[in-house]
Amino acid sequence: MQKPTLPKGTRDFGPEQMARRNFILDNIKSVFRKFGFMPLETPAMENLSVLTGKYGDEGDQLLFRILNSGDFMSKTDATDIAEGAKGLLPKITEKGLRYDLTVPFARYVVMNRNEVHFPFKRFQIQPVWRADRPQKGRYREFYQCDADIIGTDSIICEAEIILMIKEAYKLLGLEDYVITFSSRKVLEGLAGILNAKDKFTDLCVAIDKLDKIGTDKVLEELAGRGFETDTLDKTRQFLELKGNNKELIEQLHQLFANNEEGQNGLREVEEIISLLEAFGDDGTKIEFDPRLARGLSYYTGAIFEVKPTSVKMGTITAGGRYDNLTGIFGLDNMSGVGISFGVDRIYDVLEELNLFPSEGLTPTQVLLANFGDESLKGSLGILKSLRDAGIAAEIYPDGGKLKKQFTYAEKKAIPYLLMTGIEELQNGVFGLKDLKTGVQESLTLNQIIAKLG
Amino acid sequence: MQKPTLPKGTRDFGPEQMARRNFILDNIKSVFRKFGFMPLETPAMENLSVLTGKYGDEGDQLLFRILNSGDFMSKTDATDIAEGAKGLLPKITEKGLRYDLTVPFARYVVMNRNEVHFPFKRFQIQPVWRADRPQKGRYREFYQCDADIIGTDSIICEAEIILMIKEAYKLLGLEDYVITFSSRKVLEGLAGILNAKDKFTDLCVAIDKLDKIGTDKVLEELAGRGFETDTLDKTRQFLELKGNNKELIEQLHQLFANNEEGQNGLREVEEIISLLEAFGDDGTKIEFDPRLARGLSYYTGAIFEVKPTSVKMGTITAGGRYDNLTGIFGLDNMSGVGISFGVDRIYDVLEELNLFPSEGLTPTQVLLANFGDESLKGSLGILKSLRDAGIAAEIYPDGGKLKKQFTYAEKKAIPYLLMTGIEELQNGVFGLKDLKTGVQESLTLNQIIAKLG
Repeated sequence: MQKPTLPKGTRDFGPEQMARRNFILDNIKSVFRKFGFMPLETPAMENLSVLTGKYGDEGDQLLFRILNSGDFMSKTDATDIAEGAKGLLPKITEKGLRYDLTVPFARYVVMNRNEVHFPFKRFQIQPVWRADRPQKGRYREFYQCDADIIGTDSIICEAEIILMIKEAYKLLGLEDYVITFSSRKVLEGLAGILNAKDKFTDLCVAIDKLDKIGTDKVLEELAGRGFETDTLDKTRQFLELKGNNKELIEQLHQLFANNEEGQNGLREVEEIISLLEAFGDDGTKIEFDPRLARGLSYYTGAIFEVKPTSVKMGTITAGGRYDNLTGIFGLDNMSGVGISFGVDRIYDVLEELNLFPSEGLTPTQVLLANFGDESLKGSLGILKSLRDAGIAAEIYPDGGKLKKQFTYAEKKAIPYLLMTGIEELQNGVFGLKDLKTGVQESLTLNQIIAKLG
Repeated sequence: MQKPTLPKGTRDFGPEQMARRNFILDNIKSVFRKFGFMPLETPAMENLSVLTGKYGDEGDQLLFRILNSGDFMSKTDATDIAEGAKGLLPKITEKGLRYDLTVPFARYVVMNRNEVHFPFKRFQIQPVWRADRPQKGRYREFYQCDADIIGTDSIICEAEIILMIKEAYKLLGLEDYVITFSSRKVLEGLAGILNAKDKFTDLCVAIDKLDKIGTDKVLEELAGRGFETDTLDKTRQFLELKGNNKELIEQLHQLFANNEEGQNGLREVEEIISLLEAFGDDGTKIEFDPRLARGLSYYTGAIFEVKPTSVKMGTITAGGRYDNLTGIFGLDNMSGVGISFGVDRIYDVLEELNLFPSEGLTPTQVLLANFGDESLKGSLGILKSLRDAGIAAEIYPDGGKLKKQFTYAEKKAIPYLLMTGIEELQNGVFGLKDLKTGVQESLTLNQIIAKLG
């Protein structure tokens, strides 16, 4: 018989990974809830009419498509068949797998526009699927973890998103990171003073690579795209701006003296800083960077990204404001702002920095040794008492060699082993062995409950 | 623009449904953990070689298949095309969506046989997909919620599963239900004394319908399948057995006087009852029913099912022991026992009986009214203090009409509204309005934290 395999780019999450992933997700969820975000889940399958055209041509290529059920060829004709895959595709598939959580969220809001009460704060933690070439750190199935507020343009939301990021990483124990933020309007301002508004996308795409390729290469790329020498000088000046948040803003106010868009961007940045102060935030780990671009084109206002500083790793959290997300489904004027935590990367960072808690990774606190039929009845009573006291406990299901039972406890990282043999049951005093230290104590049931409860 | 739609048979779960589903799943999960079960998640997509042939011909028809990426026609030839859907299917699809959680679990165990330590207790809560015709209560995407122990034939596991069911429903607040259990070997014993071992499946399938169609129709069906008159008489006697657990077992011991399989089944039933007693269980809500068949054919020992008694609804939880689940992937002699909670049906039962808690369905405990820019800074400080105290709180992001803010709190079922206007901030005494009773109190920040924390 052939050994079973997993599809390329997909993973099982065994108990240990699950415990660690739950550590991440439960903490992030608790922050979302504390800030008033409510959970939403959408189906894995969406109609292709909802998905296609939303992620660019490349995105359309990467959609996993579901073959229609039954006789899927019934809607095809000779012409389709002659055209091959391209001709057949629209006739044999109607549904695809979710590619991100943003488009399904927009669809949900539009479909439920009369029931949803705005501003609507939702979070959503579900897998998405992309037919990308699998490689290290890139999977065909991976979780996204998003929170969005839609239906208000209040900058309070931006400030709260930054606070959520800080609170989440505090709970996760990650201290070495920086939140970089800006407004898309700052780069629009730059495009304005360069007289290059028509080349705004080129400008963003090039500047987005700044970290990777450096100033010279960015300017080279812009030159290649037809930016004139004098605009390249101004761009260099912009890219090489230095200083703390206040100094940067001051220099940019001068640079954007006659540019409304740029001034608007700076006002947003200043308001975010001032609201964070009002919240009593200490301002640490938050840096305004006018060069921040964020690749995705639907952002129109504030943009954020988070990078760890003591591990080599890309962006672990990112987001921004979009003015017209639901416009793709015909509902205009719905401004929103959102954030997405990159679960897989956060997992790798916490693992590398050894930040996962060692406790709580296994549910069971104590394993009752099974000494066979004679003491079984008494042991089960003890087991029930422990569970009734809220203690996660189990008994090794089979009698027999104690060594095997030890190994079980060890492999499952169960911290305690409890001896409930006949003699112990008669005396009401039980041996509780700490499997880490090897120390064994003699305790009554009540003492055990007090210790483990 | 076309209004977006959802694929047939799929659903969004909005905040209210999510809160209720989480109430169900969080409680069940806490029981699983308390009994030492560990979480597992497997990918939505499995190779078709893993899925096909595991659910019968009908199941194969109901698999959602993923179209291969890129030029999916490249492996096809003229013969395949001439054959239509049937010829093309194996050439253009390699992956399908998970149909249940049991086969992926078996695949996981076989693939990780050297890392997994047995007995392995895992739970798994994930959606599955079936291309069934959608109808009331039947969806194309729905959650399964399974727990299994694999690698031991100890009957302690059966007893613990019954205890888990009781604890889960206690947490969910459902009192009116009955757990019916038996062993498949009891029906095998019946087949033995009827000399109808070769017709065991027919016998099970017919008896499985007993509740729906009654004794006469079951016997009619068996007659149609070639069961002789004298066996029908014996079957009637079996189907009409009456009494409590003890009386039923006694009668069956006589009926199975010369039948080893039947005696083995009874021994299992007796051992489950005796272990439950040893656990200190009071025996309520647990009924042995020798007529229990459970449709699924892989069960070989104990079988369970749970039905509510005060609502008209089918089985809400079911499971049993299987002796060779991983045999389909070449790993033999792995006995296991599992249970599956029917989340959608449990949801409907709790809703009909009004058992969902009214509290905790919204994350936010208090909404700070937004009185505009003048008091904003002070309000944000209060908001931060509330959150720092662990209280889920939000501020309405936009200033303006208080009525709109009230409506927001009401729609989101936020229990309290907090007034943090300029005067309140100056005095340090704030109006906290209970939105259910309409009563407003004047409290300091510390008093508010004490009240809501």
